[in-house]
Amino acid sequence: MGNTFGHLFRITTFGESHGGGVGVIIDGCPPRLSLDISEIQQELDRRRPGQSKITTPRKESDTCEILSGVFEGQTLGTPIMIMVKNKDTRPQDYDEMAKKYRPSHADATYDAKYGIRNWQGGGRSSARETIGRVAAGAIAKKILKQVANVEIIGYVTRIKDLEAAIDPATVTLEQVESNIVRCPHPDRAQQMIQLIEDIRDQGDSIGGVVECVVRNAPTGLGSPVFDKLEADLAKAVMSLPASKGFEIGSGFAGTLLTGSQHNDEFYIDDTGAVRTLSNRSGGVQGGISNGELIILRVAFKPTATIRKEQKTVTREGEETTLAAKGRHDPCVLPRAVPMVEAMVALVLCDHLLRHHGQCRTLNPED
Amino acid sequence: MGNTFGHLFRITTFGESHGGGVGVIIDGCPPRLSLDISEIQQELDRRRPGQSKITTPRKESDTCEILSGVFEGQTLGTPIMIMVKNKDTRPQDYDEMAKKYRPSHADATYDAKYGIRNWQGGGRSSARETIGRVAAGAIAKKILKQVANVEIIGYVTRIKDLEAAIDPATVTLEQVESNIVRCPHPDRAQQMIQLIEDIRDQGDSIGGVVECVVRNAPTGLGSPVFDKLEADLAKAVMSLPASKGFEIGSGFAGTLLTGSQHNDEFYIDDTGAVRTLSNRSGGVQGGISNGELIILRVAFKPTATIRKEQKTVTREGEETTLAAKGRHDPCVLPRAVPMVEAMVALVLCDHLLRHHGQCRTLNPED
Amino acid sequence: MGNTFGHLFRITTFGESHGGGVGVIIDGCPPRLSLDISEIQQELDRRRPGQSKITTPRKESDTCEILSGVFEGQTLGTPIMIMVKNKDTRPQDYDEMAKKYRPSHADATYDAKYGIRNWQGGGRSSARETIGRVAAGAIAKKILKQVANVEIIGYVTRIKDLEAAIDPATVTLEQVESNIVRCPHPDRAQQMIQLIEDIRDQGDSIGGVVECVVRNAPTGLGSPVFDKLEADLAKAVMSLPASKGFEIGSGFAGTLLTGSQHNDEFYIDDTGAVRTLSNRSGGVQGGISNGELIILRVAFKPTATIRKEQKTVTREGEETTLAAKGRHDPCVLPRAVPMVEAMVALVLCDHLLRHHGQCRTLNPED
Amino acid sequence: MGNTFGHLFRITTFGESHGGGVGVIIDGCPPRLSLDISEIQQELDRRRPGQSKITTPRKESDTCEILSGVFEGQTLGTPIMIMVKNKDTRPQDYDEMAKKYRPSHADATYDAKYGIRNWQGGGRSSARETIGRVAAGAIAKKILKQVANVEIIGYVTRIKDLEAAIDPATVTLEQVESNIVRCPHPDRAQQMIQLIEDIRDQGDSIGGVVECVVRNAPTGLGSPVFDKLEADLAKAVMSLPASKGFEIGSGFAGTLLTGSQHNDEFYIDDTGAVRTLSNRSGGVQGGISNGELIILRVAFKPTATIRKEQKTVTREGEETTLAAKGRHDPCVLPRAVPMVEAMVALVLCDHLLRHHGQCRTLNPED
Repeated sequence: MGNTFGHLFRITTFGESHGGGVGVIIDGCPPRLSLDISEIQQELDRRRPGQSKITTPRKESDTCEILSGVFEGQTLGTPIMIMVKNKDTRPQDYDEMAKKYRPSHADATYDAKYGIRNWQGGGRSSARETIGRVAAGAIAKKILKQVANVEIIGYVTRIKDLEAAIDPATVTLEQVESNIVRCPHPDRAQQMIQLIEDIRDQGDSIGGVVECVVRNAPTGLGSPVFDKLEADLAKAVMSLPASKGFEIGSGFAGTLLTGSQHNDEFYIDDTGAVRTLSNRSGGVQGGISNGELIILRVAFKPTATIRKEQKTVTREGEETTLAAKGRHDPCVLPRAVPMVEAMVALVLCDHLLRHHGQCRTLNPED
Repeated sequence: MGNTFGHLFRITTFGESHGGGVGVIIDGCPPRLSLDISEIQQELDRRRPGQSKITTPRKESDTCEILSGVFEGQTLGTPIMIMVKNKDTRPQDYDEMAKKYRPSHADATYDAKYGIRNWQGGGRSSARETIGRVAAGAIAKKILKQVANVEIIGYVTRIKDLEAAIDPATVTLEQVESNIVRCPHPDRAQQMIQLIEDIRDQGDSIGGVVECVVRNAPTGLGSPVFDKLEADLAKAVMSLPASKGFEIGSGFAGTLLTGSQHNDEFYIDDTGAVRTLSNRSGGVQGGISNGELIILRVAFKPTATIRKEQKTVTREGEETTLAAKGRHDPCVLPRAVPMVEAMVALVLCDHLLRHHGQCRTLNPED
Repeated sequence: MGNTFGHLFRITTFGESHGGGVGVIIDGCPPRLSLDISEIQQELDRRRPGQSKITTPRKESDTCEILSGVFEGQTLGTPIMIMVKNKDTRPQDYDEMAKKYRPSHADATYDAKYGIRNWQGGGRSSARETIGRVAAGAIAKKILKQVANVEIIGYVTRIKDLEAAIDPATVTLEQVESNIVRCPHPDRAQQMIQLIEDIRDQGDSIGGVVECVVRNAPTGLGSPVFDKLEADLAKAVMSLPASKGFEIGSGFAGTLLTGSQHNDEFYIDDTGAVRTLSNRSGGVQGGISNGELIILRVAFKPTATIRKEQKTVTREGEETTLAAKGRHDPCVLPRAVPMVEAMVALVLCDHLLRHHGQCRTLNPED
Repeated sequence: MGNTFGHLFRITTFGESHGGGVGVIIDGCPPRLSLDISEIQQELDRRRPGQSKITTPRKESDTCEILSGVFEGQTLGTPIMIMVKNKDTRPQDYDEMAKKYRPSHADATYDAKYGIRNWQGGGRSSARETIGRVAAGAIAKKILKQVANVEIIGYVTRIKDLEAAIDPATVTLEQVESNIVRCPHPDRAQQMIQLIEDIRDQGDSIGGVVECVVRNAPTGLGSPVFDKLEADLAKAVMSLPASKGFEIGSGFAGTLLTGSQHNDEFYIDDTGAVRTLSNRSGGVQGGISNGELIILRVAFKPTATIRKEQKTVTREGEETTLAAKGRHDPCVLPRAVPMVEAMVALVLCDHLLRHHGQCRTLNPED
């Protein structure tokens, strides 16, 4: 039951890194959304391997097909199935992994839980599984855009110790996409790229932080007490491969302030709306969006797959060593950006539909 | 639908801070667990207000009743309903709040979402709602203890900038409970208590960090890809009032390491089990527990309610100021400890039941 | 997890027939519904034991309390907890049942599943559990009435072989409530009452059929393919104690017709609406309501508890006999009517909220 | 959210009758089940169109592919995706249906709910959607067989008014499959086939009743109070296209008996097991299986699509007539048999996993 996410806008993904393919069923998409496959492909292209010199060289065009739920360019309100066939698989690269567990990978735990695993690549724990999420996220983004002009923009704010100060209020998608590391600070981005290349050349890997901002999120999204917006956002991004931490608004740093420093005082803006003077809450109070920018951050650990030799054990319980040979990313951050955006979009869209209902979200008069 | 948590071990809470009472229905508890109400009361006592000089003086004994699901001292496998009646309510303290929104509270967002709120105290967003969680967590803890000797221990590692280094492998419940701030470092604890008192005397508040360790967690818990153990843990604790951040294992700090520094190398221990030399994964790899210590941290912001005057607005849209008069905690951390433990227990117990089944968890031969 | 029903309008019930009490948490009720406890009590009074000479003489006033979710006469959008304390319990009546399984009751299966049961009365399998459902159903009915003037009327159409032809288009609640058997055909009703008394005097019991009509159901309710309206209705009523069969529209009798006899031809009515000339579909086509009367029937078996001696076995595996002594209904039908109505209301309200969203159902402008 | 069924053994289907294809994701299948695609194909062949002279002549081989979740002939515990591409589509046959609503079909209600529909064939409401269910059911059957030697056998007991008395205790799959109408009474089967041919030649259609028996069902399956076994079975089969009624055990006929006639008296069998002398309960008491045969019946209406001219209306609201031209079944019963079996298997397997847990169902030592 762990492969389904969301309630009213609900996705179920399938697929291993090697095998027939990967994809998603989206259940609950409002009807009569105009949808072109290129809109989905565009997001997948931001996620796909081989997109730049700092990502894994695995060659996958990740070309998607829509097999149901869309008719004459419009959604039907029925399940939308989107899939990508696996192509550039080289199972021979993984022969060694049939026997040895890769450190800090899911090989050992899948074996412990299921007593079996697809050892060709990461199997189900591969980041390839996120194709379905990103495809579904593209649709969620479009709905949010259409209903309330919601914008969701993710970007890299830190690679290892290289940090960039980005203004979430003004950052644009164009700035993010202007370089291959997806850090909208041009100078810092170049340093980050250099650092990733250096680390890769050493046979090592690094991690960092993705920040994501949501602009124009409607007030009132989130369902206390367990399905608070920040709780659902936390689950969403912590289900991404390699994530180790989550923050909303002031996050861990906010614990260094006093209440009088931290609280977001209220005022009435020109339009008569209730607003806050600061935004340490990160756009959510009591689990419900308050109309301010929603701002969250996700920590991604350094890629577990490295060429350096490491101690490990075999399935049969013998100690040995392993130096990875398969293709891999030296740093997941650039490709994690569209994944974070997708997960954030899925959460917001689900709560939007809880608020509006499936059929009335896009067509309020129905 | 946001008031239910868990799948096989599933809780639904109810209640506002003022009104008839608060409580929980626990659905899916395995049958034939011996259960005494004192075991639940004991956990509630760790959560209740008025327990020490650094918590809110609100007087609530929080005495619980079990109304169903237990017969002759044993669970029936049917829903267990536990409730606490509200007693020391002083709605008059909150008159001002009927009109004014408290900064960084949920008053404004509840009004925005529902068009109505119980303004006597925090209503549904009050930490009082967590009584049901802690009561259910007491049962989850007992099941985990009985099935696999699982221990869940939470403790304060930081109050504002006062940090304590605690060894999660050896910390004991007795150490945690030996002082009122629940920091198992005696000297640091005294400094923390002093700081909380000073801040309270200034009419202000502070936050901090709770760490929680799980010992003896069985291998194999967690349901990739969306219900990864760390994802469910993140959602669980981020649904607690005042939480702003979550980390598992190396967390945000782990992003400063390289892969070769961060990876947990494997070895075979004396018993022939697969173990890791380090534990930056925090006991979870690929969303599944690996048998090492599960270690997580939660950031809690400074309490929003403060006596200092702050800018705010009225329900009618006028700017004004507010200085809180109701009783409140100057720092939620000491009382947050049992809440974090409870949420962690609920997640683990749910995954344990997914693995074992409701009826076979305690009685494998059934 | 079997004690929760519904998705957006979701109820969770608790309680055994003997013990602290029984009740329900309703999660997802739209905010700002005016709600008076008398509206709930009124429905409970139609369900309660001791209401007439043909029901069980167990004396329970079934007086309900609302403990959360309602403030100053209006729903808050937060969970509504409603409970009834158990009063007239006579566990001594059930001593024999601690050891012997009552034929066609759930005693043996609860023991087989859980290894334990509350043998005082029916425990969790008692019809007393339906108090929570009827209370929640009262709220669901009110929402449906307010949003679309929906009327839900149940009535007895058959007791054993005494059948009454009732016109679902015109039957009124007053007609149903005009006699104690709840059959809106006055003459037949008297015969039914006489039959029930005769059977009771013989120490035996009987069953029958409840029909339920929904008038003014909005078009478009139901979520194909699994949550078709008739599928959810079937589950809802088949979860009631003693139900053995379900039909919608033409039901089993419809299988005797040809397609040309059975199909509901379309026409356009005066208002321009698409309507059907006949209604063998029972108001649902393809799992979605079509605006015609929704008509369903439920078969209830004769009450299992009878005074006549029957063969049975003990918990310890010995053959014996049993003649029931506890108080019981000779025929569940009169009290089943409000239960069926409640379950139908819960299903419709859940689908209404899926269509409209929680917050917009009553307040479309939100 | 209506396209997912089950909790621990959970399926999500996708696909319209015309378009890319149809299929299913199965989430929660226990790992290490040996699985060959021919086992699934075999069940699909019992469901496919064109299988005999009394089914629709639409030519679809319904050849399935497994795209994930199976590795080297064994299930991985990860989602299994199975799909069938659509082939013999003749959208031109349906041109008229773009404008006209077919009586007693879902055309009008889909339009009312979604404001759009795929009018090529039945779209999402086509019986073609059940391919995913039957494929998933094949796996559920295999698990049930392997864990407890459970047998699930469906068969036709009535076509219009032609009824066959079948002994559920002894009927075999071979008997069912020995003729094209799937009625294991050879003489009656021939009469039924003749009747279907006659009706088809008249341009009309007929319905009937499918009975299904489960043998060797483990005691203890079912989760009161809402997820009673009979409630989940009712929902399962009432979600099949064309079903109008459901009965378990004595069903509607049982309401004609008195309690003393209807009750199933207990005895102790040779093995010391608690058994019942009769089985009017249909293998379920209080929502939990009791180890006796589970027996249920489903009413299927006459196929809605007929060649006879009928009154209908256009999408634009004009009255007109329609005589269907597309290919269709004159009677759905023969093909409904594997569908009913599949749904019954899915329900039982889900409850089996609730009882045993995902990972321990097939591998109890894990």
